[in-house]
Amino acid sequence: MNKTLQRKKAEAFRAMHRGADILVLGSVWDVSSAIVFERAGFRALGTSSAGIAYMRGYPDGEVISRGEMLEAVAEIASRVDIPVSADMETGYGQSPEDVAETCRLVLEAGAIGVNIEDTTGDPDRPLVDLALQCEKLRAVRRMGEDFGVPIVVNARTDGYWLKLWNDERRLRESIERCNAFRESGADCLFVPGATDPKVIATLAREIRGPLNILASPGCPTVPELAAMGVRRVSQGSGPARAALKVAQDIAAELLAHGTYRAYQANTIPYAEANALFASRS
Amino acid sequence: MNKTLQRKKAEAFRAMHRGADILVLGSVWDVSSAIVFERAGFRALGTSSAGIAYMRGYPDGEVISRGEMLEAVAEIASRVDIPVSADMETGYGQSPEDVAETCRLVLEAGAIGVNIEDTTGDPDRPLVDLALQCEKLRAVRRMGEDFGVPIVVNARTDGYWLKLWNDERRLRESIERCNAFRESGADCLFVPGATDPKVIATLAREIRGPLNILASPGCPTVPELAAMGVRRVSQGSGPARAALKVAQDIAAELLAHGTYRAYQANTIPYAEANALFASRS
Repeated sequence: MNKTLQRKKAEAFRAMHRGADILVLGSVWDVSSAIVFERAGFRALGTSSAGIAYMRGYPDGEVISRGEMLEAVAEIASRVDIPVSADMETGYGQSPEDVAETCRLVLEAGAIGVNIEDTTGDPDRPLVDLALQCEKLRAVRRMGEDFGVPIVVNARTDGYWLKLWNDERRLRESIERCNAFRESGADCLFVPGATDPKVIATLAREIRGPLNILASPGCPTVPELAAMGVRRVSQGSGPARAALKVAQDIAAELLAHGTYRAYQANTIPYAEANALFASRS
Repeated sequence: MNKTLQRKKAEAFRAMHRGADILVLGSVWDVSSAIVFERAGFRALGTSSAGIAYMRGYPDGEVISRGEMLEAVAEIASRVDIPVSADMETGYGQSPEDVAETCRLVLEAGAIGVNIEDTTGDPDRPLVDLALQCEKLRAVRRMGEDFGVPIVVNARTDGYWLKLWNDERRLRESIERCNAFRESGADCLFVPGATDPKVIATLAREIRGPLNILASPGCPTVPELAAMGVRRVSQGSGPARAALKVAQDIAAELLAHGTYRAYQANTIPYAEANALFASRS
């Protein structure tokens, strides 16, 4: 991608976190969902790492290779005009250098933002040491400067996602981590799994930077999140899993009853689907 | 793919057209839908050329390159155990040699069957000259023998799909074409767009080979088709377009109301999605 254009996209995306309206990021899983979401009016897109993994037949959790994940990001970024942020899970590596290199490849793929999470996968020590995680974020920031595109970093902490500790400690550690991430150059702070309105309001108040909430089951609506001071909302793999459910329903109905309601009752007509994608070819 | 295994799959797939039950082919568009359909219990899959095109951001009609289409077929065929037949539209070429080469690449991609249609795209002469189309089918059959895998050929005629001529001529030409295709080595005859029960029953009676019907809107149910003597039923891009409609509904609801019903009301839970794909990794 043209670096001037890519720099502008990164700056425009960063500015969306400070705009009048909460940023509703469309969480996409392939080129078709990206085009559908762009056409619907989303201002920016985020890839769902789980959604991309599922569509290619893998479970979530870095089972899909970095190369295949980046290929999917590049396909998406090359087919829409709006900014695309890539979810790269923990960044495919343990060291700041590894994570920075993954983020460099994200920029090469044409995206302008990245999610980096702090899970270890180790139940005994579930989150990455805070100092090391901050070092990773600084390395990503430096990489962006060297590359010439100010990559927008969404730093994720997983205390709520993994249901760690008791309520009080979970809240305190999440705030502490997010504020440390912010001081290390993160542009936005992401606390998936937080759905309780009081918790979200406290996070929004205590975290000294834009807060991203995942619209998972039980989450307040977008207007409610906006009123609490949340600056960005995404859907993760929710939309991808709903699309997959349609496939499951179609299969079950066809095999059990030999009827077609699951794909004929609510669909995009053939001519309309062709027109939708013809406009992007 | 191991050629002995591939030969067995082709033979098993061919035998499904003569079994006790009508063959319900699952029409898939990516690896995830293929895995979901296989797990649901389908005995064989067919790729939807339009479905694959949409998922990669193209309209139907050979806008997607042959290479990208074959890449999608190979991804699907490599991730399921059941036989996969590939829809290659007109076969990416005008000559018998071109079409046979496309079908050779389909076998290389790990599929064991192919759809070949007879449209020209020219409104003045909408169907390929019958003698030439039969020559293509013979070339594909010879290629399969040379390759060592008896590729299962589903020969499609588009009089109903394109709404050509009057009722009487449409029926007569469709029967005539299918019978000529059958004599040229086609294993199955495909008449998409035929949905009227009387027409389908006549086609099934007059065509001297297994008949494939597309379950498009207005089509009789699978048990009804079976009772008429239809041997194979597929869904084309219907399931893919229904999955895309979910993406469209999710986007519209998020942007208009900031709510999540379209992806939370009917979905595959996160843990279940991971389990589904973990079993295939």
